[in-house]
Amino acid sequence: MEDKVQLAPVGLGRWARVLARGAQRGDVIELASCFSRDEQRRRAFQEEFSVPRAAATYEELLADTEIEGVIITTPNDTHRPLIEQALEAGKAVYTDKPIAHTLEDANAVADAVARTGGVFAVGHSARRLAGHREMKRWIEDGRSGEISLAEANFSNERGLQLTPQTWRWYADKSPGGSLIQLGVHHADTLQFLLGPVDSVTAHARRLHTRAEVHDAVMAILEFESGALGHLAAGWASPGMYTMNLLGTKANLMYDLDFTHWDESHQADDWSSLTSQLSGESTRQPVALQRTDMFREQLDEFALAIRGRAQVEVGVTASVRALAVVRAALESSARNGAAVSVQEVIASTGSAPVT
Amino acid sequence: MEDKVQLAPVGLGRWARVLARGAQRGDVIELASCFSRDEQRRRAFQEEFSVPRAAATYEELLADTEIEGVIITTPNDTHRPLIEQALEAGKAVYTDKPIAHTLEDANAVADAVARTGGVFAVGHSARRLAGHREMKRWIEDGRSGEISLAEANFSNERGLQLTPQTWRWYADKSPGGSLIQLGVHHADTLQFLLGPVDSVTAHARRLHTRAEVHDAVMAILEFESGALGHLAAGWASPGMYTMNLLGTKANLMYDLDFTHWDESHQADDWSSLTSQLSGESTRQPVALQRTDMFREQLDEFALAIRGRAQVEVGVTASVRALAVVRAALESSARNGAAVSVQEVIASTGSAPVT
Repeated sequence: MEDKVQLAPVGLGRWARVLARGAQRGDVIELASCFSRDEQRRRAFQEEFSVPRAAATYEELLADTEIEGVIITTPNDTHRPLIEQALEAGKAVYTDKPIAHTLEDANAVADAVARTGGVFAVGHSARRLAGHREMKRWIEDGRSGEISLAEANFSNERGLQLTPQTWRWYADKSPGGSLIQLGVHHADTLQFLLGPVDSVTAHARRLHTRAEVHDAVMAILEFESGALGHLAAGWASPGMYTMNLLGTKANLMYDLDFTHWDESHQADDWSSLTSQLSGESTRQPVALQRTDMFREQLDEFALAIRGRAQVEVGVTASVRALAVVRAALESSARNGAAVSVQEVIASTGSAPVT
Repeated sequence: MEDKVQLAPVGLGRWARVLARGAQRGDVIELASCFSRDEQRRRAFQEEFSVPRAAATYEELLADTEIEGVIITTPNDTHRPLIEQALEAGKAVYTDKPIAHTLEDANAVADAVARTGGVFAVGHSARRLAGHREMKRWIEDGRSGEISLAEANFSNERGLQLTPQTWRWYADKSPGGSLIQLGVHHADTLQFLLGPVDSVTAHARRLHTRAEVHDAVMAILEFESGALGHLAAGWASPGMYTMNLLGTKANLMYDLDFTHWDESHQADDWSSLTSQLSGESTRQPVALQRTDMFREQLDEFALAIRGRAQVEVGVTASVRALAVVRAALESSARNGAAVSVQEVIASTGSAPVT
């Protein structure tokens, strides 16, 4: 067991604990150290997860030669410097989604990954939910036929509860509000299922939140395949996580009660996928093969460090997900004119992501 | 019983029979005559619905002094001349939705209604479904709070089945395809629920149909209230009729198996409305008061002829529903740029609809 992959969580808030529980459900990872600027948090985290040591500074953590990789769950606008530093220090990096809050930062991260050759993974976990994995199988084996319309919504009441004490209140830290926090999940999963988005048309509104950010966003995604996608992200209503795919041979409707999302080994139990075949007007439940998204993505990351797995969501997919968000905000600023995803990536001045 | 309102169906296809059954479930209307150019159809219709007489020409029908109003179910592009002629002849007019296939025609109809003072009703029946009526009550009495996002989809496989023998094949007769045939229902119902749409952003595609028309359309509706709406209409998948409203106090989710729509006294039995209140992650069924949309709208039309009811959907609402469709097609032609509904109405050269 001393051969477990030695990882260290960075930023020890709620999400670090969710991921730590996921990692500890597996038998691949040892949480060998941790870092937060807050000593209290470090001690509490060490105690909760039996982490043998903690670093008082990020530099100290990165100097720890036994640590093979870090798990970053700090605010979006801090991702880039933390990722760059870790990669330069020879550590593998797992970061929570989105890869960054701007494409400038995302492209800088992409450059650092290319330059260092480090293992890099982004926590676009939602695509690993059993329902989405099953949707992918239906698309790949042709059971759904050709998809022409896709509809996705991820909303909750967070915007009504935000206070100036949280970074999500601020437009410069969380541009797009509900879109970058919630919608970015679907931006990844939809592209996982249907391939790259070519252009985005969107309107973003700030309706009921007191925070600086958008709480009602709707986008139309034009996929390279020709399909059209609807992406909604709201922060001013009870919670909802849905995705419908309309195909020539079948419709698939996915519905998740995401309040159970944190315990991802049970999340699928709170979801349903139904199918409606051509010529039928009723829907049938589709059996799902249970997944454990947080455990699986962390295990995959850890094994990739040892060369025994491939990271599923690295730079390319995570930049594409963020680019859909940024293209939507740009489109909204242009009153709905379609904005090319490749153009918003390229306009940030870095090499195009392929 | 001789006091029943004397009406005459015009265009005696499938939809005329659906409406005739609706009218005969009530006790307000007598189908006293009918007209189709096809003598066989006239005879079959008379026999099926015990209609005492039939007219060999439209002029003969309009010269029948006992006929108080006509029920028009002919192709969209024939609505205008038939409506104008009937109104000029002093008959009340009920026409199936959409009011017309172009705003030019719709505005001409509006002018004819204003000029003649005739009773005029458009069959935007969907808003009368029990689920939509209940949604309206939740909005009006504040149970749903402020609606920020609305999602509506009406799709079926019709586009995969079209042949050049049907008028719906042709772009000049059915511009927008699935949008003008199916989506226009939601364009009306959403405005019934949330008030007028200010602007429309849309993409319309012809993906899998062999016909000339669009079979995959998505639009974002910007309501004057600030809310954003998603309107999808597809013709290349199994059937689906859904509407979700996301409010600060509750979400409402409506789902209808519209294959039972024709028998509208039972349609509500094939629908479900669920609510999800603020702070809750599960949905509860909402009890519905059964409606009979076709009977109710025809009874209302008939009683309005006698001055004993008000027509709910006349020129204003039906032009607004069509204008959303036309604005969506215009937006798609402009690559998603937002198009003002009032501008597309006004640009057709007639008086603005208020």
